[in-house]
Amino acid sequence: MKYCSTCGHPVEHRVPSGDNRHRYVCPSCETIHYQNPRIVAGTVPVWEGRILLCRRAIEPRYGYWTLPAGFMENSETTDEAAARETREEALAEVTIDELYTIIHVPHIDQVHMFYRATLTDGRYGAGEESLETELFEPHDIPWDEISFPTVKRTLEHFVEDMRSNRFPVRVSDIRHRMGDKR
Amino acid sequence: MKYCSTCGHPVEHRVPSGDNRHRYVCPSCETIHYQNPRIVAGTVPVWEGRILLCRRAIEPRYGYWTLPAGFMENSETTDEAAARETREEALAEVTIDELYTIIHVPHIDQVHMFYRATLTDGRYGAGEESLETELFEPHDIPWDEISFPTVKRTLEHFVEDMRSNRFPVRVSDIRHRMGDKR
Repeated sequence: MKYCSTCGHPVEHRVPSGDNRHRYVCPSCETIHYQNPRIVAGTVPVWEGRILLCRRAIEPRYGYWTLPAGFMENSETTDEAAARETREEALAEVTIDELYTIIHVPHIDQVHMFYRATLTDGRYGAGEESLETELFEPHDIPWDEISFPTVKRTLEHFVEDMRSNRFPVRVSDIRHRMGDKR
Repeated sequence: MKYCSTCGHPVEHRVPSGDNRHRYVCPSCETIHYQNPRIVAGTVPVWEGRILLCRRAIEPRYGYWTLPAGFMENSETTDEAAARETREEALAEVTIDELYTIIHVPHIDQVHMFYRATLTDGRYGAGEESLETELFEPHDIPWDEISFPTVKRTLEHFVEDMRSNRFPVRVSDIRHRMGDKR
């Protein structure tokens, strides 16, 4: 951020009075421009015991397999966002079952939330951001070609929990370590 | 948003190519300025069966009782944000127990998340944004003077769940209706 989105004046990066964090502040109109984490919402879409994955047609992680997910939009709920992303990326209508994983990724200012979901009629396809989509048996999941750590962790929990058919909400963090690729 | 925060040029409000929503777009440097929902994180702080509430010293809802909560900051997790807000508003250190409520408020582009928490040493006080703080027995909660619908719903669930001592994660929505005060 270089310019004030309210008045166009160059902004300063400083701690506003009464605050304890650096913010972008406009010295002309005095607007404080707060920046906050974003929510990524997605689903674990299931059909007859198999899990629907999408192969990414976009960067980052072009060609890797992912769960359908993306940035939550204004005016949505997280389950609506998760269902919309599933529709867009996998051309699949789903019934949202329950919230499943919440994974904080603080070094990129994101919170990822995945819902368990069931395909409404078994139909799916490749949306514009997907090269292909496919239903995988749990033992056939391409673990070495999964797009992101939050997707991998959600799938690991899900495959584990399928054995007991109990799916508690799981909250965890993925923190940046030296040498990580993301 | 009137000006591009990247280059200072006046922005347009239109649907970018390949998108299906109106965004603020810079016709000069072509930056698309996405806007996304914000997370409000808070706690239900408990000490010896009583619940800690804060009486607000700021607008909106000055003088009403609330659970400690506020906007999640970048680089935080939701439980860290909830604990920080509790420290700031109630001068209380807490141990975060478990995620409890997630309440979507789509008409104001917010997701509220409350954690169950336990005061570390029973100490609390009034932070800068609070007139006073007080531990309430469940039957003494001032229901007619609660600040916000998400706080009221979280407290209602909590008092109900205290009877069984089982606290499942609860996901719900609060949607704007004509005549609502918020």
